[in-house]
Amino acid sequence: MIISIDKSKSNGVIDALGAASSRSGASIRVIDWNDGSLSVNVLGQIEPDALSHPAITAVHQASKPYRLASKEHREKTVVRVGDVEIGAGNPVIMAGPCVVSDLDQLVNAAEAVKAAGAIILRGGAFKPRTSPYSFQGLGEEGLQMLAGARAATGLPVVTEVMEPEQVEITAEYADMLQIGARNMANFPLLRKVGKTRKPVLLKRGFSATIDEWLMSAEYILSEGNSQVVLCERGIRTFDNSLRFNLDLNAIPFLKELTHLPVVVDPSHGTGKRSLVGPMALAGIAAGADGLIVESEPNPDSAKCDASQTIEPAELAAITRKAMAISALLNVEELLPI
Amino acid sequence: MIISIDKSKSNGVIDALGAASSRSGASIRVIDWNDGSLSVNVLGQIEPDALSHPAITAVHQASKPYRLASKEHREKTVVRVGDVEIGAGNPVIMAGPCVVSDLDQLVNAAEAVKAAGAIILRGGAFKPRTSPYSFQGLGEEGLQMLAGARAATGLPVVTEVMEPEQVEITAEYADMLQIGARNMANFPLLRKVGKTRKPVLLKRGFSATIDEWLMSAEYILSEGNSQVVLCERGIRTFDNSLRFNLDLNAIPFLKELTHLPVVVDPSHGTGKRSLVGPMALAGIAAGADGLIVESEPNPDSAKCDASQTIEPAELAAITRKAMAISALLNVEELLPI
Amino acid sequence: MIISIDKSKSNGVIDALGAASSRSGASIRVIDWNDGSLSVNVLGQIEPDALSHPAITAVHQASKPYRLASKEHREKTVVRVGDVEIGAGNPVIMAGPCVVSDLDQLVNAAEAVKAAGAIILRGGAFKPRTSPYSFQGLGEEGLQMLAGARAATGLPVVTEVMEPEQVEITAEYADMLQIGARNMANFPLLRKVGKTRKPVLLKRGFSATIDEWLMSAEYILSEGNSQVVLCERGIRTFDNSLRFNLDLNAIPFLKELTHLPVVVDPSHGTGKRSLVGPMALAGIAAGADGLIVESEPNPDSAKCDASQTIEPAELAAITRKAMAISALLNVEELLPI
Amino acid sequence: MIISIDKSKSNGVIDALGAASSRSGASIRVIDWNDGSLSVNVLGQIEPDALSHPAITAVHQASKPYRLASKEHREKTVVRVGDVEIGAGNPVIMAGPCVVSDLDQLVNAAEAVKAAGAIILRGGAFKPRTSPYSFQGLGEEGLQMLAGARAATGLPVVTEVMEPEQVEITAEYADMLQIGARNMANFPLLRKVGKTRKPVLLKRGFSATIDEWLMSAEYILSEGNSQVVLCERGIRTFDNSLRFNLDLNAIPFLKELTHLPVVVDPSHGTGKRSLVGPMALAGIAAGADGLIVESEPNPDSAKCDASQTIEPAELAAITRKAMAISALLNVEELLPI
Repeated sequence: MIISIDKSKSNGVIDALGAASSRSGASIRVIDWNDGSLSVNVLGQIEPDALSHPAITAVHQASKPYRLASKEHREKTVVRVGDVEIGAGNPVIMAGPCVVSDLDQLVNAAEAVKAAGAIILRGGAFKPRTSPYSFQGLGEEGLQMLAGARAATGLPVVTEVMEPEQVEITAEYADMLQIGARNMANFPLLRKVGKTRKPVLLKRGFSATIDEWLMSAEYILSEGNSQVVLCERGIRTFDNSLRFNLDLNAIPFLKELTHLPVVVDPSHGTGKRSLVGPMALAGIAAGADGLIVESEPNPDSAKCDASQTIEPAELAAITRKAMAISALLNVEELLPI
Repeated sequence: MIISIDKSKSNGVIDALGAASSRSGASIRVIDWNDGSLSVNVLGQIEPDALSHPAITAVHQASKPYRLASKEHREKTVVRVGDVEIGAGNPVIMAGPCVVSDLDQLVNAAEAVKAAGAIILRGGAFKPRTSPYSFQGLGEEGLQMLAGARAATGLPVVTEVMEPEQVEITAEYADMLQIGARNMANFPLLRKVGKTRKPVLLKRGFSATIDEWLMSAEYILSEGNSQVVLCERGIRTFDNSLRFNLDLNAIPFLKELTHLPVVVDPSHGTGKRSLVGPMALAGIAAGADGLIVESEPNPDSAKCDASQTIEPAELAAITRKAMAISALLNVEELLPI
Repeated sequence: MIISIDKSKSNGVIDALGAASSRSGASIRVIDWNDGSLSVNVLGQIEPDALSHPAITAVHQASKPYRLASKEHREKTVVRVGDVEIGAGNPVIMAGPCVVSDLDQLVNAAEAVKAAGAIILRGGAFKPRTSPYSFQGLGEEGLQMLAGARAATGLPVVTEVMEPEQVEITAEYADMLQIGARNMANFPLLRKVGKTRKPVLLKRGFSATIDEWLMSAEYILSEGNSQVVLCERGIRTFDNSLRFNLDLNAIPFLKELTHLPVVVDPSHGTGKRSLVGPMALAGIAAGADGLIVESEPNPDSAKCDASQTIEPAELAAITRKAMAISALLNVEELLPI
Repeated sequence: MIISIDKSKSNGVIDALGAASSRSGASIRVIDWNDGSLSVNVLGQIEPDALSHPAITAVHQASKPYRLASKEHREKTVVRVGDVEIGAGNPVIMAGPCVVSDLDQLVNAAEAVKAAGAIILRGGAFKPRTSPYSFQGLGEEGLQMLAGARAATGLPVVTEVMEPEQVEITAEYADMLQIGARNMANFPLLRKVGKTRKPVLLKRGFSATIDEWLMSAEYILSEGNSQVVLCERGIRTFDNSLRFNLDLNAIPFLKELTHLPVVVDPSHGTGKRSLVGPMALAGIAAGADGLIVESEPNPDSAKCDASQTIEPAELAAITRKAMAISALLNVEELLPI
């Protein structure tokens, strides 16, 4: 780590950094640049809180702030959800309705997305809604319906958990716990799911940097739960012509930084039904380990997110093409030059 | 409300909107534009979930999605914290250390900021930190220290609450509950503080729109707690030369939309000690009802946020100038032309 | 078009809108919502300048502000650059060095990218640089080298033009004129290239909305030049871990809005060599009509943009896989369900 | 400057940096961190183009990329426009209509804003418009009207210049040349105004970082024109509830980085008439050297930007309060503690 310091305000800071470094077994070396600035090179780790002294003008991390999530810690993680492996090779398709509201409809939807190639069922029992006047989900009754749909189809189930108190009950019914975008920095919730041994689908906050996202994964990993899948679901930019901007750059970039599997949510990532297919395939071409898609029969009458929910027939076409693109990426030599 | 519809996909949507409108006592009128689009004018309220049909290309809200937070509902709210009134006229200065770590130091800091003009004490007992390896606050022990500092100085206390389970214990000790930026859309937490009768300081999420912020206030108000103060604390933009960008446009804009008081946090809003003073005064000039500032003696050795913490002497200068600017704004005719 | 009006300030505005509408042959209809707001429905076009009256609280465009660029004007445009057709089916690969600095090196690079599957040569003679102290390109001497490389390889040439005065000389040498991201809203330059009959590669400004981008295309089209190709090259977001964020959502979205071909620049779009391949393939999977890539032998010693320039061998692999993905997208039924 | 290097790809890069450094008289020192990374410390300047080698993972600038614009080069610049000094102490008010369309109206507006305290007249002759179908300004005829209004009122005149070819004719009529936000990175235009000896008002691009803005100033300064005033006019963020977000953080931040005066445009910066006053005063409180405001009699009928144009009576109130706030900022001790 290299710490840049304004020499005119540096009184005491070198000593403080030296003390903090020696507490964690690191050593420091100071360079005077003769232009009013100093650098302190730290060999080893230093407490993050030591770095906010106002004489410090910049901190350049030679190594990343996360440890357990980094590729240096581990080369590759395969996450198991029921019998399904995420990160093992073939893209994993997760699909289902936005929200769970009726058992028959849910079983019907689960059978339809299974026939279309999905191998994990998604569906919301607890729903975070911007308006207090919108439908907020059925809660435990919804969880029971999800378990019913699993029994009927054999598909393992992923569903969102919104607060620490819901973790236990949700873990009883679900095979994978989803942390939604709005809760990516809900640290008590991250710690709580980190204490379970359920796999976690960690969605990216819509204005979270890559480093912040991996630090949230670090919260879960540091509690002992190694089964984390990252899910890119669209960021917020200046351009509001779509609800969100699916950030596919994150996929290959994460593959360089972390051993955790990465999947893509083109439904929330665009908010627009006609873009789900092209962006799903683009996500696979960028290297994603899977997709999570809102799909159910009669999407026009979906209880929420109708504008981004696709028909199972379209999901089937996406699945076929996604498998073909994924296979093609792994072929070394397709054609002679 | 005006709903725009793609005529080619409109099969069934008009009927569905009609049904949803009549359920809530509204009526609709349809216009055919002869260019492939229809408009549906809705007189009255309609369920938000009815608006996500994919044939709907745009929804133009004649009225705002929030009700209790809007200026149409109420002209002006004054929030009482202990004996202090926020929104009653004079700017209210809240100040104190980032985090509470020692009772003597805290009492010392509280006395110093009181002498500098602060009338509410701030300080963190539960701290949301990006890294799981950073200091996370003392929890209830910190709350006890805050109560001790109140006893010593008479200043009412505001402190952050991070999860629903902490609300009860925090409300026992604190005079005002702070919802931090990362929790602005933590809906279970909003509902929980809405169920108390403690005043709430609701910080803006750093990528929340004005409407989303007011919808979060609506969650609290709709539970029966009318004592909400909004706090602008910096948004995230493309420009990372500062940690955040304090968005002062929000101040006069909120004054047109809501009856709730609005304060400014120039410490987190800039992340840089030398900018705290100018941006604090700019916030008052823009019409803010108060300031919340990180300040303590010996800020260089602050346990966190040292780079944005100011000395009490600087806080005193800010207080004096803030009072003068506020007085000046209310003078109708300062000089003849 | 639907115009929302604040009734309390509406004095005169209805008359003004009526007058403006009748000047352009449109008619208006007024709705009173009984909630303090009025709506004016405009059937037909109205002058844009009539819409900035302060009583107007919102304007909802039933139709888009661009005309010639819209899909309603035309279903599909194929742009010809020399013998190459962009938008006709197969993805078009454009490649070459960032900047032109030496004829032998350029011919060498052109031969290498041609062997790797490129069918248009790119290279900069006029270079926009953030710093006045960076290398600014060779100007006309660079254009002559590009013409030399075309003579040697048969590849048509695309190169950037930075100001109206350079258009004539550049059009003498080049087969396609590039408008760079920083000049997307340089309206005099757009008009000038619109007056030529050379095809134009119009890069997206890095903070331009989709509508603004199409309005810039409209400037070129309205001067009579119909040969415009849009190029997504990365937008600026809050996340600066990469230089830019390639916005692939724009590809399928533009396909719904405009008849113009769309290509992707994964080199500038990410700024990072290791991401060029995955994002190039993702762009093709999203539906792009082609790629423009910085590539040359010995990219480590490239005179600029070395960190995003790839070797011709990697370009060859990208080309093969891009062709395969493109073919696959057009297959209706790949596998039985 | 500290350059971080990925050791596994570092082949040749140390030698290349050494060669580039010695070409510019700098020296280097290499540190091996024993974690797979190297650092190269450069004492002195190095060519920017040497820094894009792909083995370079980060560049930490000890000093800023601009020189002439930096505070190290010069402590303070006062810019003279006619008899007016910008940056000398009192805030300078510039005001006038958005666009010039009629001599009598312009003289009338100029007299009104002069009576309201403005000491420089603004008005557009060449207008950059997003739509090719909007009114584009009168060109030279507009410049003649501005000269007429100056003759009638004695106010010096600032007006925008959009392309290099317009610089000469505009400099004949105007006292100060404005570079608009869309042209902040139009480098040929910056060079051209840098070759004149007219003062320049350099608006910030709406997605330009502070460093990029100062680099654009550097283009002008490096041509020998030292008379540059920076103008903050709103940036683009995720929040589109206003047209732009006036970024007042830039004011005190620039005061630390540069000797150039800084003014604020609350009209374009918010796009909303009712916010112009509060944000103008906030700008002065943040330390701005002046304001540029769209104002004319009967703003509702302004030919463009009516929604952000204020009446001269409101401008007069802003001027009075701005003067009072500015005076107050300079008072050391307002009240005893």
